[in-house]
Amino acid sequence: MRPSSSTSEPRPEDAPGGLLAPLFTDPSVESEIADAALLQAILEVERELAAAQASLGLIPSEAAEAIQNAASALRLDPADVGRLGVSAGNPIHPLVRSLTEAVHREARPFVHLGATSQDVLDTALVLLARRAGTRIVALLDEAAETLATLAQTSRGTVLAARTLGQQALPTTLGLKVAGWLTALGDGTERLVRVLGERLAVQFGGAAGTLAGLGDTGLPLLAALADRLELAEPVLPWHTDRQRVLDLGSALAGVVAAVGKVGQDAVLLAQTEVAEVVPATGGSSTAMPHKQNPVDAILVRSAAMRAPGLLATLYSTAALHEHERAAGAWHAEWETLRSLLSVTGGAAARLVELVSALRVQAAAMSSNLEMTGGLLLSESVAARLIPRLGRDRAHDVVAACARRAADSGVAFVDVVRADDAVLDVLDEAELAAALDPKAWLGAADALVDRALLAHQRRSHQRRRRGTR
Amino acid sequence: MRPSSSTSEPRPEDAPGGLLAPLFTDPSVESEIADAALLQAILEVERELAAAQASLGLIPSEAAEAIQNAASALRLDPADVGRLGVSAGNPIHPLVRSLTEAVHREARPFVHLGATSQDVLDTALVLLARRAGTRIVALLDEAAETLATLAQTSRGTVLAARTLGQQALPTTLGLKVAGWLTALGDGTERLVRVLGERLAVQFGGAAGTLAGLGDTGLPLLAALADRLELAEPVLPWHTDRQRVLDLGSALAGVVAAVGKVGQDAVLLAQTEVAEVVPATGGSSTAMPHKQNPVDAILVRSAAMRAPGLLATLYSTAALHEHERAAGAWHAEWETLRSLLSVTGGAAARLVELVSALRVQAAAMSSNLEMTGGLLLSESVAARLIPRLGRDRAHDVVAACARRAADSGVAFVDVVRADDAVLDVLDEAELAAALDPKAWLGAADALVDRALLAHQRRSHQRRRRGTR
Amino acid sequence: MRPSSSTSEPRPEDAPGGLLAPLFTDPSVESEIADAALLQAILEVERELAAAQASLGLIPSEAAEAIQNAASALRLDPADVGRLGVSAGNPIHPLVRSLTEAVHREARPFVHLGATSQDVLDTALVLLARRAGTRIVALLDEAAETLATLAQTSRGTVLAARTLGQQALPTTLGLKVAGWLTALGDGTERLVRVLGERLAVQFGGAAGTLAGLGDTGLPLLAALADRLELAEPVLPWHTDRQRVLDLGSALAGVVAAVGKVGQDAVLLAQTEVAEVVPATGGSSTAMPHKQNPVDAILVRSAAMRAPGLLATLYSTAALHEHERAAGAWHAEWETLRSLLSVTGGAAARLVELVSALRVQAAAMSSNLEMTGGLLLSESVAARLIPRLGRDRAHDVVAACARRAADSGVAFVDVVRADDAVLDVLDEAELAAALDPKAWLGAADALVDRALLAHQRRSHQRRRRGTR
Amino acid sequence: MRPSSSTSEPRPEDAPGGLLAPLFTDPSVESEIADAALLQAILEVERELAAAQASLGLIPSEAAEAIQNAASALRLDPADVGRLGVSAGNPIHPLVRSLTEAVHREARPFVHLGATSQDVLDTALVLLARRAGTRIVALLDEAAETLATLAQTSRGTVLAARTLGQQALPTTLGLKVAGWLTALGDGTERLVRVLGERLAVQFGGAAGTLAGLGDTGLPLLAALADRLELAEPVLPWHTDRQRVLDLGSALAGVVAAVGKVGQDAVLLAQTEVAEVVPATGGSSTAMPHKQNPVDAILVRSAAMRAPGLLATLYSTAALHEHERAAGAWHAEWETLRSLLSVTGGAAARLVELVSALRVQAAAMSSNLEMTGGLLLSESVAARLIPRLGRDRAHDVVAACARRAADSGVAFVDVVRADDAVLDVLDEAELAAALDPKAWLGAADALVDRALLAHQRRSHQRRRRGTR
Repeated sequence: MRPSSSTSEPRPEDAPGGLLAPLFTDPSVESEIADAALLQAILEVERELAAAQASLGLIPSEAAEAIQNAASALRLDPADVGRLGVSAGNPIHPLVRSLTEAVHREARPFVHLGATSQDVLDTALVLLARRAGTRIVALLDEAAETLATLAQTSRGTVLAARTLGQQALPTTLGLKVAGWLTALGDGTERLVRVLGERLAVQFGGAAGTLAGLGDTGLPLLAALADRLELAEPVLPWHTDRQRVLDLGSALAGVVAAVGKVGQDAVLLAQTEVAEVVPATGGSSTAMPHKQNPVDAILVRSAAMRAPGLLATLYSTAALHEHERAAGAWHAEWETLRSLLSVTGGAAARLVELVSALRVQAAAMSSNLEMTGGLLLSESVAARLIPRLGRDRAHDVVAACARRAADSGVAFVDVVRADDAVLDVLDEAELAAALDPKAWLGAADALVDRALLAHQRRSHQRRRRGTR
Repeated sequence: MRPSSSTSEPRPEDAPGGLLAPLFTDPSVESEIADAALLQAILEVERELAAAQASLGLIPSEAAEAIQNAASALRLDPADVGRLGVSAGNPIHPLVRSLTEAVHREARPFVHLGATSQDVLDTALVLLARRAGTRIVALLDEAAETLATLAQTSRGTVLAARTLGQQALPTTLGLKVAGWLTALGDGTERLVRVLGERLAVQFGGAAGTLAGLGDTGLPLLAALADRLELAEPVLPWHTDRQRVLDLGSALAGVVAAVGKVGQDAVLLAQTEVAEVVPATGGSSTAMPHKQNPVDAILVRSAAMRAPGLLATLYSTAALHEHERAAGAWHAEWETLRSLLSVTGGAAARLVELVSALRVQAAAMSSNLEMTGGLLLSESVAARLIPRLGRDRAHDVVAACARRAADSGVAFVDVVRADDAVLDVLDEAELAAALDPKAWLGAADALVDRALLAHQRRSHQRRRRGTR
Repeated sequence: MRPSSSTSEPRPEDAPGGLLAPLFTDPSVESEIADAALLQAILEVERELAAAQASLGLIPSEAAEAIQNAASALRLDPADVGRLGVSAGNPIHPLVRSLTEAVHREARPFVHLGATSQDVLDTALVLLARRAGTRIVALLDEAAETLATLAQTSRGTVLAARTLGQQALPTTLGLKVAGWLTALGDGTERLVRVLGERLAVQFGGAAGTLAGLGDTGLPLLAALADRLELAEPVLPWHTDRQRVLDLGSALAGVVAAVGKVGQDAVLLAQTEVAEVVPATGGSSTAMPHKQNPVDAILVRSAAMRAPGLLATLYSTAALHEHERAAGAWHAEWETLRSLLSVTGGAAARLVELVSALRVQAAAMSSNLEMTGGLLLSESVAARLIPRLGRDRAHDVVAACARRAADSGVAFVDVVRADDAVLDVLDEAELAAALDPKAWLGAADALVDRALLAHQRRSHQRRRRGTR
Repeated sequence: MRPSSSTSEPRPEDAPGGLLAPLFTDPSVESEIADAALLQAILEVERELAAAQASLGLIPSEAAEAIQNAASALRLDPADVGRLGVSAGNPIHPLVRSLTEAVHREARPFVHLGATSQDVLDTALVLLARRAGTRIVALLDEAAETLATLAQTSRGTVLAARTLGQQALPTTLGLKVAGWLTALGDGTERLVRVLGERLAVQFGGAAGTLAGLGDTGLPLLAALADRLELAEPVLPWHTDRQRVLDLGSALAGVVAAVGKVGQDAVLLAQTEVAEVVPATGGSSTAMPHKQNPVDAILVRSAAMRAPGLLATLYSTAALHEHERAAGAWHAEWETLRSLLSVTGGAAARLVELVSALRVQAAAMSSNLEMTGGLLLSESVAARLIPRLGRDRAHDVVAACARRAADSGVAFVDVVRADDAVLDVLDEAELAAALDPKAWLGAADALVDRALLAHQRRSHQRRRRGTR
């Protein structure tokens, strides 16, 4: 019988709290990467190793049973283990000693047999990553569903597209949201793929040769991978960290997609824009009127922290010496947990952010009008180009824009009175040229594409998930 | 007829040289990312855009032909264009103006029709990335072939595995090289996948709505993607930089795998180790005897530079505001070119490095003996554990090791005289326990796995390449 | 006689141009860090080394003269030297050979005497850094003067302060600009200090012992430092990169201060804010009306690139092995030049940015009114607190804000009609509470402080400069 | 009376433990930056703010006393405060509410008067940084004293200097250690200066104008700075993060200096080098004989983590919008605490590392001989140059080196038999040329310089400390 994947399910309510942590983290993710979870995962690896060895007849089944029972029952204080691990440079040594002491004499030689510290710790961290990653994916999926709905419902909501900080053209909120959704879907898909395909068991023994296991090393590697439902690597990856890079990149990629939403949300919530505002916001100690877009802000802060952590993973990946590294490996542990933590926090805050967006269509309309129609200059120019040529059309429209700016007369009114324009466009063409809703290009079709892609992804994921 | 993929093939000999550049770059890659190549790629995008528009009947075929001819014939000095691009903030504006001037009056309205600067520059950079990436993959493949051969020929060459800087166990050079090969293959496969699947055309018009193209925007997007043999994105990705992150991660991932080889090569070439030395090495101005492992050193330096560049891509990815970014996009351009350049340099230097490795088997042997057999302590302990239990076996061997250290007698000799050991092991068992070749675990089988995986990858790549 | 500090002054017009480079770089800085300048600096170090050795009687004065003449006259193509430097791993070797060949037979033994490649290249890069840094400081000073004037002239210009993207309180443009000025002054002062105090000659010979120079090594170190007007280090700093970190930090610190101005300028130029707009702006290929804040955008892009480069310097600083590093040193060269280049570009663009700011006081006023006085809520609350207590005052004002939001009535009007408020404040107090100009706190005095600090710094710098 | 600088001294034994934390952190530093310490520091700022306001007559002294008492007595669970701070986006809001509730009705309006969250949190983090920084400096000083002693005692211990991984020349352990000491002293001095000069109080009110305080804002700023013994800034630095950059750079600079020691220690402890080994080392679960250089390894891992954290500080510094940032500030908090933590761990591990180094002079000697004298090739060449010229001398020695390599005869013996050498050097000159102790250059004098600089620094620091 396949054992349950964890000796004791971590519960979000057990996640370590803190003065600042709640701002930046998600309890469901924290509970999966906390010290207690890591300790359990380490014991789980030892347990499954014994079980796998017994299944191959490498160790007596009584010994394996004893080890499995002890690993499941052992309750250690992470801080105690941590303290004892200092002299060895990692916590596996004292933990193996405790586990060994917890089984009867005959079983002791079979504890941790053929394994090295890195086998156990890497595999345990991979298990943490999978569990935390799964929680993160669930959060991202929740946000994506909300965004998909919003893209659908706001596909007719026109607002100003902005490029380089300037109003440029009309677009729809639906397309804007579809853009968030697409990047998020892309990032989530990458993460799902890494969690499903790239997380591998680590098992190579002291120097990656599986010494001490004779001919049974490779079957044991396969059996252990199978029991833990992890990929079986071609070789032990003690100093080949490509898989860690894939994990880190996937996490940081998700954070970037999430951060972009936060970036736009902060900008849209600006007092002068106020097109999408937080339904519930941060209050201020000094300014009672303020509704700060707290979720968006914290999402952005996460996005600013992930790249430095990722850079550490990439920097160290090239520094793993020989068969096991003297520092580069150690630098990974907390960096990887931090990156999982930051990603979890970003995802959780994104769920809050997107579920509490208040669309202010009136503000969008009035902002659209604030340039007096200048953001339809491309629309006007496009209708002049076939007759005037690009340069001349451009010049005509630019002249109108300049006259509008100089005179204070709205651009639409200048255009309506411009001889060069009137030579080319009749009244109906003019009206169309100056209607934001008539200058949305393929916005609607693009929303369809994004929603379709989203549905396909969800569908494929569900199908794969239920195999 | 499908046009050739570039108006004029960049040639490695045209790559810009320099005082330091030759150390860190590869001419074949540099020629693909140089200013001249970027300028050509921009013109190519404009050319294919016109062709695609004509094929859909959006513009007159005479105009398209004129634009295509002009784009192919136009010879501009990158520095001139660059200077003129300063006020607009990018070089597309003056370039479009030059192209427009180069066609007859009737064709002018159809130049750059419906496109925005970012459409053209992003697509041109993607073309550069594909071409430079292809060159990089060729270099990586060349290095991988050499490594595969070396893994095969050195599978029986025993040397000390080292963990945390200490000799740990015997391993084989074959397995060590197989480790390099596997990471490199993994990294290359990721890069190939990104080059083949994730490089997409950019085309969204001024604000990503394809405004100005009516119903023809999406067909045009598809046609342009097809002509340029790039992926067609679900949406314009002006501010969704997930694809850029995939590209950057793939490049930096390759550099990490390459850098690990450099790291090991530097360590193996140390005077005191001297197990694998450069066949040709850097001479020194001051020290005539020295043969510095120059290729390994430069490979390492590349590995140290890539993570910072990658972090910039991730940092900026979350900062792309609204429909087009005010700075984050601009920060990508040179960063991406630098990353391509550094990766190319790393790959080229790796080719040199692996093709000029001199294996010093004698040094390996004598180093293996320098601890008096201490690195077989696990071998001895493993043979004691079934009888003594892990703790007792560990203690017995540790006591031998300590006595060896204190007395200066070789560990093998201490072991041979140790009563606790002799109680358990007979002469033949002792000899086996102390023979490095008999403690290689699955090293040989692991080499097979790595070579098989390498062959499968090569085969799949070739098959896909010839479709 | 002290030789001129460079054999041939680099001229900005000789700076290498390029398709993208003009956007991101400053010619005056580029000309100081280009390959040609580096080659000249290397020759200069060799020249001054010979001169210093002659002055101490270590080598014949005829030989020194020959070397000095040859080093001044030698004209080499950087690309040629670069190509020849590949096998040695740096360009010093072929350059020393060329220099040696350029002197008569008797002088040859005295070329490069006692030096190692790193001595020469580190010192040459330090010379480049000082010259480029000096150019950068000049640009920063120019921007600071403009900002100081603007802070003075706009100290009475009231606009909305924004916190977390929301209008918060009134402030003055003078204070905002004073903030930019202060950070810039701080960053510039740090850079000036590093350029003046922390740039040291490198001279240690092959392994940092000054072997080969007997008792004259230390006097020669001092003489060489003196001739090059560089600091004399306690020890050779071949693998102690603290000085490089100081330089890198100073450059990146400046870029951060510059980038903050760009960040604010982009936000202030937004169509919906439009309080400070570029006098001349980037035009768009697609949108004739747009005036993009190109300088601000490019300033921001520089700010996004510097941190990754700096991280590379810090990462490598800890990796310099033993007496000279196997990769970490090489990774510094181009990284440091890139950082100088990015900083130069940021500074040059800042000069453009601040010299072409158009203050739109009317927009500031109207934006200030757009919340109906909400950003005076703190003003109102502060006047209520002494009588109502903080919590009650906060609640009263928050209730007014909520009523304003719900009813659409301006906050000022709600406040004027609120019984709880009217119980506490009389008419005059109310008017003051609702006047932005009366709620500026110490803004004016803070501007004075910033200007005074600026003047003191300028004064001290001038005084130190003329010693 | 000046209050004690903290309401309750954090004690190292209260530092949060953990499974991995003990490896990477120092309890004395952790106790200063833990949530409990941050909460206390926040209360301390509120307390001193009230006291300062009372001292200036801004608030009634009874109210101030009540606030001070309450702030000193208040015992809150950081996790509770943290949870309540989520909606506001920082923990100051609920904390101020608790503090307000803890004082009698009349005092309540005077709690947190004129301050904004960022004033309090920035100042509290600065206090943490000073305290943690002081602990770090103490650790660094302790390590430096050990290194100074070692430099002195090992100034006559000759070993091979290594450049690019190759033995190059003889040097002394004294000089090598002096190099570590010098970089560490440099880094420590920078940190001390930042702690003493650059840590400033933050106090600007909601938008940096000190609104709400009338004319008393600036005197209050000065008084608060004075009470907290922090620098008084020219302006509030809400969005001017130059000071944070100085702090971060100083911490990361120290880590780089520490990391370099770890790097060398790992290399020197390699089995094949074994010149300096850990007196007590990490044991291995699999290999009973191993003595891993655990301290050096963990020092290195810290050095690999700091640059990414520093990059985050630099990245965000340019992104602080307007008067207070929407994310960039929030990204600083945990990053800064992590950087303090990593630096503390690196420093603590360095103390362990340097206090338990075992110098193996015999290994040094035998390694020195392993190239058969090749590392004296410069010594030989230098003695030939005056007679043969650099090129010819170089060629003669290179030929000897090649013959030595080809024949297996030791270089010293080849040289002793080489006609070209014998033409130039007599027996005594030859003996000197081949004696490592006679080719140490200025090593001894350089050690003197380093020790003198160390003593001067210590002296100046003590003198300043007792003012």
